[in-house]
Amino acid sequence: MNALRHTISLVSLGTFQLVRRTRGPHARGFLLGTGLGLASFSAVTYAHSAEAVNPKVNGVQMDTSRFMAEPITDSKALLGDKENMRHRMEILIMEIQAEFCRALEAEENCGQKFKVDRWERPEGGGGITCVLQDGDVFEKAGVNISVVTGSLPPAAVQQMRARGKNLKEGASLPFFASGVSAVIHPRNPHVPTIHFNYRYFEVETAKGEKQWWFGGGTDLTPYYLCEKDASHFHQTLKSACDEHDATYYPRFKKWCDDYFRIKHRNESRGIGGIFFDDIDSPNQEAAFNFVSSCARAVIPSYVPLVRKHKNREYGNNERQWQLLRRGRYVEFNLIYDRGTKFGLYTPGARYESILMSLPLHARWEYMHEPKSQSEEGKLMKVLKNPKDWV
Amino acid sequence: MNALRHTISLVSLGTFQLVRRTRGPHARGFLLGTGLGLASFSAVTYAHSAEAVNPKVNGVQMDTSRFMAEPITDSKALLGDKENMRHRMEILIMEIQAEFCRALEAEENCGQKFKVDRWERPEGGGGITCVLQDGDVFEKAGVNISVVTGSLPPAAVQQMRARGKNLKEGASLPFFASGVSAVIHPRNPHVPTIHFNYRYFEVETAKGEKQWWFGGGTDLTPYYLCEKDASHFHQTLKSACDEHDATYYPRFKKWCDDYFRIKHRNESRGIGGIFFDDIDSPNQEAAFNFVSSCARAVIPSYVPLVRKHKNREYGNNERQWQLLRRGRYVEFNLIYDRGTKFGLYTPGARYESILMSLPLHARWEYMHEPKSQSEEGKLMKVLKNPKDWV
Repeated sequence: MNALRHTISLVSLGTFQLVRRTRGPHARGFLLGTGLGLASFSAVTYAHSAEAVNPKVNGVQMDTSRFMAEPITDSKALLGDKENMRHRMEILIMEIQAEFCRALEAEENCGQKFKVDRWERPEGGGGITCVLQDGDVFEKAGVNISVVTGSLPPAAVQQMRARGKNLKEGASLPFFASGVSAVIHPRNPHVPTIHFNYRYFEVETAKGEKQWWFGGGTDLTPYYLCEKDASHFHQTLKSACDEHDATYYPRFKKWCDDYFRIKHRNESRGIGGIFFDDIDSPNQEAAFNFVSSCARAVIPSYVPLVRKHKNREYGNNERQWQLLRRGRYVEFNLIYDRGTKFGLYTPGARYESILMSLPLHARWEYMHEPKSQSEEGKLMKVLKNPKDWV
Repeated sequence: MNALRHTISLVSLGTFQLVRRTRGPHARGFLLGTGLGLASFSAVTYAHSAEAVNPKVNGVQMDTSRFMAEPITDSKALLGDKENMRHRMEILIMEIQAEFCRALEAEENCGQKFKVDRWERPEGGGGITCVLQDGDVFEKAGVNISVVTGSLPPAAVQQMRARGKNLKEGASLPFFASGVSAVIHPRNPHVPTIHFNYRYFEVETAKGEKQWWFGGGTDLTPYYLCEKDASHFHQTLKSACDEHDATYYPRFKKWCDDYFRIKHRNESRGIGGIFFDDIDSPNQEAAFNFVSSCARAVIPSYVPLVRKHKNREYGNNERQWQLLRRGRYVEFNLIYDRGTKFGLYTPGARYESILMSLPLHARWEYMHEPKSQSEEGKLMKVLKNPKDWV
């Protein structure tokens, strides 16, 4: 367990029983309504899981009530081999999904809840898609996990080879992939959009050996720039990285700036965060711990910003600007995003889960350019030239 | 001159002087307000051009007042070599642009006009982008022409080789391209969206020879299905094709159905029309005449539908459905459309002109599925399974 989570667990153990006893939306709202609650919610759930699961190793079923739905892998199998990285990752992403969904639900003023779809894939595996649409705080929020096995088509293998993977050319290869991904589009233009994705990948090489790696990232897309928020967001991610390797944050911050670039407009989608792929060092345990830290940092990086701005006043001008920027978000996702393209070109892909990242509404105006001295213009400056926030 | 245009010219010559004498928006509105006017407007302008241009061959300047802006190629050069296919195509697309823009302006109830941007490209050539945004009838209408020369990057050459072009591999090749393209998104959900594009392409082969071809198409995207409209639209295109080759319409109708497919959803963008590429037979003259006929058929295929439905009542349900379908339009254009991708990946491309095809507003709802017996469901049936309309 990493230091950040450890600290939070210690701080929050006192409130743990309260959550267990009054496990309703109200109690969650109460817990999350405090300054500490946010972070502690994330950790409390984890503490709960560790305690609740352990006694049942020799029992029949895992306690899955804390998840949004039954895991994709049979609970017995998940528990039976807890050293298996596939299982550890599945439990992690199930936890992250549930914690994040509940943290967001707690921010809704009128009790809107996520709609949960558990789906299976004929080719192997499945996923759980959680969507909250038309909430009063969140216009569209999607939090998805998937755990899939199958055969990588030669074109996808070719792509991976181009990235330096030592895979057999021209063949279909057995693969395993699991991950959590989320895109949250709030209603209030003063609340930024967040996206994150953490994933684990295994491919069988020509020799029948297993190659594995982790990838992921978290990034923020504000409509109006609040420098303090930007610093808080980046600092939270940096802390999660720094626990593992001091070179991670600067490298992955730059990677993020490079990746989320809307090339034809020469501007960034947002103010970045971290982004990485092909992480297979120093060893599997350390790589998993790093990814866990990043995933656990999502709630404390973001939910305070939601709470701070969600009830701010705004007018039609701000709304129109938000919709225009959402159009840019759509452009990035449909034209450049590797995950979206990989997903949509995969036969039998569940496109509703892939496209849940798109906003409820978007707008395209011909030749729109905000005045450079306006609030909109100030945002554009940092989108044109990404800067350092910590 | 093909038979259709000829007939229209004969019918409309009587009204020609009226247009010339009272050349204002009102006069145009009057002309277009009649049953015949629509078609005659298109042809009248052409008759006007033939008469107005001929006497000036030895003069200093071409009469360009009928165009939306000065042509890209110097008027003197355009007139100097009127047999040159590049020049003939440029004059055609300038005419088509102006006729279509004015036909649409005439449908606006409060006199909204197209905003005209004439732009030049440092690498050679330029274009004229006309956009009418936030009109009372047209929410966003873009009509673009471009006339460009430059060097095709090896990747684009590779794409063309894959389509069977006999071009040198791995080299950059000099090219010329000109075309007109338009996407019209009306406000009223009972008025369909139309798209058309007609283009001429030249590439220099390894031996320094010139390879040329034409491409294009017109297709319709209704939000509510009116079978009579669909038949009228397809019949108008079929008539334009049939003048040249009886095999064209069935082949190009199928090509259109295949091309405008949103593959991940297994549905079509709209109810099709015609689509073709690589037309280089039976000879250049015949190919140009065919493309001219198709381009001249746009107004009579579409504007009657605008006039018929533009003032129909509708409510929020119809509007929301229209916005959802516009989201699908965005998906197709950004994920699959060859022209958009080719454009956006070309360094220095004018992305505002390429992306003018995107609607002012679009919407994405998770797992939206209309009831099969509803009006929305009826449209979905023909989008899932394209049918014959004539």
